[in-house]
Amino acid sequence: MFPRRGFPRSEFQARTIAAQTLMDANEIGALLLTTAPDIYYFTGYLTRFWESPSRPWFLVVPSSGTPIAVIPTIGENLMSQTWVEDIRTWPSPRPEDEGISLLAETLNEVTADGSKIGVPSGPETHLRLPLSDFKKLSVSMGRRTLSDDARIVQQLRMIKSPAEIEKIKTACDIAGRAFARVPQAAPIGTSLSLIFRRFQTLCLDEGADWVPYLAGAGEKGGYSDVISPAHDRQMEIGDILMLDTGLVWDGYFCDFDRNWSYGAAGLPVSEAHRKLVEAFNAGLDVIRPGITASDVYHAMARVVGDTNAGRLGHGLGLALTEWPSLIPSDQTVLQIGMVLTLEPGIEVGGKMLVHEENLVVTVTGAEVLSPQIGPDLLVIS
Amino acid sequence: MFPRRGFPRSEFQARTIAAQTLMDANEIGALLLTTAPDIYYFTGYLTRFWESPSRPWFLVVPSSGTPIAVIPTIGENLMSQTWVEDIRTWPSPRPEDEGISLLAETLNEVTADGSKIGVPSGPETHLRLPLSDFKKLSVSMGRRTLSDDARIVQQLRMIKSPAEIEKIKTACDIAGRAFARVPQAAPIGTSLSLIFRRFQTLCLDEGADWVPYLAGAGEKGGYSDVISPAHDRQMEIGDILMLDTGLVWDGYFCDFDRNWSYGAAGLPVSEAHRKLVEAFNAGLDVIRPGITASDVYHAMARVVGDTNAGRLGHGLGLALTEWPSLIPSDQTVLQIGMVLTLEPGIEVGGKMLVHEENLVVTVTGAEVLSPQIGPDLLVIS
Repeated sequence: MFPRRGFPRSEFQARTIAAQTLMDANEIGALLLTTAPDIYYFTGYLTRFWESPSRPWFLVVPSSGTPIAVIPTIGENLMSQTWVEDIRTWPSPRPEDEGISLLAETLNEVTADGSKIGVPSGPETHLRLPLSDFKKLSVSMGRRTLSDDARIVQQLRMIKSPAEIEKIKTACDIAGRAFARVPQAAPIGTSLSLIFRRFQTLCLDEGADWVPYLAGAGEKGGYSDVISPAHDRQMEIGDILMLDTGLVWDGYFCDFDRNWSYGAAGLPVSEAHRKLVEAFNAGLDVIRPGITASDVYHAMARVVGDTNAGRLGHGLGLALTEWPSLIPSDQTVLQIGMVLTLEPGIEVGGKMLVHEENLVVTVTGAEVLSPQIGPDLLVIS
Repeated sequence: MFPRRGFPRSEFQARTIAAQTLMDANEIGALLLTTAPDIYYFTGYLTRFWESPSRPWFLVVPSSGTPIAVIPTIGENLMSQTWVEDIRTWPSPRPEDEGISLLAETLNEVTADGSKIGVPSGPETHLRLPLSDFKKLSVSMGRRTLSDDARIVQQLRMIKSPAEIEKIKTACDIAGRAFARVPQAAPIGTSLSLIFRRFQTLCLDEGADWVPYLAGAGEKGGYSDVISPAHDRQMEIGDILMLDTGLVWDGYFCDFDRNWSYGAAGLPVSEAHRKLVEAFNAGLDVIRPGITASDVYHAMARVVGDTNAGRLGHGLGLALTEWPSLIPSDQTVLQIGMVLTLEPGIEVGGKMLVHEENLVVTVTGAEVLSPQIGPDLLVIS
């Protein structure tokens, strides 16, 4: 039922070599990575310990050879089970030198003086270490400079391998089975907060490793936003329930939602849902390698009009949301292996409805990874 | 069974005024906050949408008056339900100007030219926006400079109010009830990965909003580390099971663990566990306002010796781990309302054992918030 966990060593080698080729082309002497998805991508180092903000973690991808981990001692045992062989540790927390001297030494060792060290700095990135330590680092490396990474990590992570797609598909399947059990778990009279807790339980029961993200709503005729926490009011006839997950299997996310009407929905809401599915299909129809994220946006926007959610979908994988963005200005060219969520939204009677499915770009078009639903709004009676 | 959610407006006012008093003393014209805990602390803005790294969020605390939110449009409805009245939005994602011009305009409006703008930059902080945008911001503000925040946010967040302590206690109670159900949920023959999924379910069933963190292990006679994901091997006689959560209620964490032996443990393991509880009690005994984090470390280290986990405990609250660190060099003076976890670790036969409980510093000493256990290792038979 579940595929094999992890990746073969060859996959990490291929990712590293692909990065090094791009580093060479961009005259970047080394990559410096600090976040969970970036470090997992190059190493397979998987832990929920990232939840603790106390300790920074560093991975250095040199211009040739294998990545070097510069990490707190507490991670040494786990990192030693990955393909990374050069593991350098410091006893953290040590605020007076939180790995910075060891990191500077490592960067100085693997790059020539005057080199550019690439740090992911563009859209949807952040730097996971204290700013004061970053400043300390930048003056500890002679004439080397910390620059952006020419979006190398973004370019690589956007294209998923077959093994990555299988993991995302597994996450989608788990969520699909959990969604199918919602009508039983959320009868009329159940509070939204209890539905949230039960739905997370269903995700775990169906095989999720964990459920980092759950959004949803339960309101009359649609919802006011898609990011609020659950309220304690009990669901009643006329309410629209929406649940949107974010569960993880072996480090990879799905991200799609479902809507249910308590009792038969009125015509405006039913029609709005039909339109959302139509918009999704319009997006799906145009997707093939070579068109842009913007093209997909426009195909859907022609059906639903402009949205104030800001975009009609995005990439996903090691993070809940990744590049590209389905917005008018995103000219990212779709390529085979990109995994996207299409999430058209629409206004109805002052409220909103959102419908979302996940897919992967294939040679000839796209394959839907989530268990695609039809235009009829689901009903809980 | 559960206390009231949220905080009265007066609490946010008090936090803001306390920050402004410290800002004045440190000649800081405004605070710029970017992370979930910092923004929740000053506003009550609570959402799991932070899981998406795509959009930055900004809160400006001016030298007087109420905080100003500079946020993506998608958050406007939810933010408008907090006490924040001045909400400025941009349609995000908009990579060419991801809120930076609006933020610069806001900072320029509320501070005099030449002001220092304080950004949390010290230990256990990070900046949640792309580095390139931070650089753009720093050149958009005339002679104003982005500096560190003189640890103002750290100082405030370290001391918990009665309402915050009640939320942490609620999280501890939920975890305590979930831990009590583990022997039924994890009989001999259950795989560790299934135990992880079931334990998260127990946490949700007992009332957790979500379970952002779960660590654990299941190995013969102790464990090799405390951060690895669950393996698929079934638990058998001689294994030690450890589970350590990180569940959240209304935005606040608990963080404590339990150990169980499958069948009666051998003498070395039983004695090691007894020693851990002894170390915890030694730490607990010395805690009172006025002693330092270092003092608590030494009280425990006298029982268990030096640990290679790096510390013997830490603060907690809006994050799983917060300041201070129970390490020799941390001279933070304990104050009434600080919430700490004590987590002594010990080596036994080449493996480790860790025991953890949560407490709050009181006028006369400390009150244990987790359902404290005794020296006898729990047994699953």
